[in-house]
Amino acid sequence: LPDLKPHRRSALCDRLGIELPIIQAPMAGVQGSALAVAVSNAGGLGSLPCALLMPDAIRGDISAITAHTSQPYNVNFFCHTAPVADAGREAWRPIIISSATTVDEARWLEAHGVDVIVAQGLEAGGHRGHFLSDDLTLQAGTFALLPQILRAVRVPVVAAGGIADAAGVAAAMALGADGVQIGTSYLLCPEATTSAVHRAALKSESARHTAVTNVLTGRPARGIVNRLIASVGPMSATVPPFPLAAAAVGPLRAKAEGQGNGDYSSLWSGQNASGCREVPAADLTRQLAERL
Amino acid sequence: LPDLKPHRRSALCDRLGIELPIIQAPMAGVQGSALAVAVSNAGGLGSLPCALLMPDAIRGDISAITAHTSQPYNVNFFCHTAPVADAGREAWRPIIISSATTVDEARWLEAHGVDVIVAQGLEAGGHRGHFLSDDLTLQAGTFALLPQILRAVRVPVVAAGGIADAAGVAAAMALGADGVQIGTSYLLCPEATTSAVHRAALKSESARHTAVTNVLTGRPARGIVNRLIASVGPMSATVPPFPLAAAAVGPLRAKAEGQGNGDYSSLWSGQNASGCREVPAADLTRQLAERL
Repeated sequence: LPDLKPHRRSALCDRLGIELPIIQAPMAGVQGSALAVAVSNAGGLGSLPCALLMPDAIRGDISAITAHTSQPYNVNFFCHTAPVADAGREAWRPIIISSATTVDEARWLEAHGVDVIVAQGLEAGGHRGHFLSDDLTLQAGTFALLPQILRAVRVPVVAAGGIADAAGVAAAMALGADGVQIGTSYLLCPEATTSAVHRAALKSESARHTAVTNVLTGRPARGIVNRLIASVGPMSATVPPFPLAAAAVGPLRAKAEGQGNGDYSSLWSGQNASGCREVPAADLTRQLAERL
Repeated sequence: LPDLKPHRRSALCDRLGIELPIIQAPMAGVQGSALAVAVSNAGGLGSLPCALLMPDAIRGDISAITAHTSQPYNVNFFCHTAPVADAGREAWRPIIISSATTVDEARWLEAHGVDVIVAQGLEAGGHRGHFLSDDLTLQAGTFALLPQILRAVRVPVVAAGGIADAAGVAAAMALGADGVQIGTSYLLCPEATTSAVHRAALKSESARHTAVTNVLTGRPARGIVNRLIASVGPMSATVPPFPLAAAAVGPLRAKAEGQGNGDYSSLWSGQNASGCREVPAADLTRQLAERL
């Protein structure tokens, strides 16, 4: 079986203007500009998650990024409905990177002009990126999803889900990925704003049991199983729609976290937290690239 | 991050007495001795699945294997309850290979003296190998499961789930696997006894949608979603216990298959059927090993 797409890694780096084919996954709620700056300055693509930010906060964080790095960076939004035309936004002429959880979604994204596709394997932490179907049985693990998306589209494809260290990066590239997107491994970096209860959970044995759950926000997302997920989830038909579920559990979560208790928190994590390191994000980025 | 376990591939081959670190997954119902012989003669480890065989049939198939190959082969059983002592069986002094779907199961197997562990990622086709818990949220994709099992045990670890071609084999080895176990890719080989409806499904777009279901046998297994799974599954609390569900649906399945219809059949497949090739199993085995 020939390698169908040689030299795709450098093509991705050229396209994005980065040195290393490593995208730091945007992780709303646990990071701001500092993590993005550190990863971009280390040669990867740092990301600013905007799902929880109002426009003024986004402007402030982007100013903070551009003040501390001249390298490219990624600004991430949740897109649940088709956006309306916006001349100001279109004037950016950005490169669009979007997640696909199935081959059909990858084909849809390519047909709609996306520049780079992130193949989000079922191992990935945080919110699932599915948008063509809510049937979670359609979603596959990285080992299965990535090769099938690579065969289905011509744009660069970035692997996400379960990739935690240099060996994982090397494996994804061996499968033919143009690059990788890594989130969970960055959660213990000092630049991340991961909460104390979240950090404690990631360092414990409990990080080995995650589930895709809708009880924390109303939309399926992977997190470490805690009391809330175990008692009313992982999937519930009666949960308020996204993002209202998060507000519903907010007071309980705040009270518990004040007591150092993550029973009701969103302890987002992929299925492989074994790559988490309490080291600066630049060091982690370089470690991830060691086998490239 | 250092490569923790160098040279483990050759250690596995030495332990099993095989040339290539490729195990043909035992697949009850779709293969007999012919596929095992072809793979063993090609340098991999062929497998004879015995889950559906009475003792006389097992003896017959083993005779057929030993008549056609002098290479090692794997004889596979489902073990749902602790086996009783059996002097005849113990006289074999076999090497025991067993599947783990979680880190806890891998540790349990090692503690109980298993020689080789198959890390069965959630992408894998056919029956799930879980035995310590029925909670399927504990099961992880290959990218996440394999590295964590490699860190947890010292015996050789074989990767399974979503590995479909030479790139997949190379990726699993890059993650640190000592070898790979591959099933789905062999299903179209002439030596497999895969049914006509099963072959047709594997070659169609419908192979991209699989689910872990208990409605076909009573025990969770991954297969291509068909009418039966879609209408009463994928998981059902009212299904007869394993293996009685298979008998319950038997007459309906036989009638439908007689009309070339797989709506009620067990169309076992992993999440990545893209590696299926209608080529002799020896050729496929050599292709899988091309990047080793």
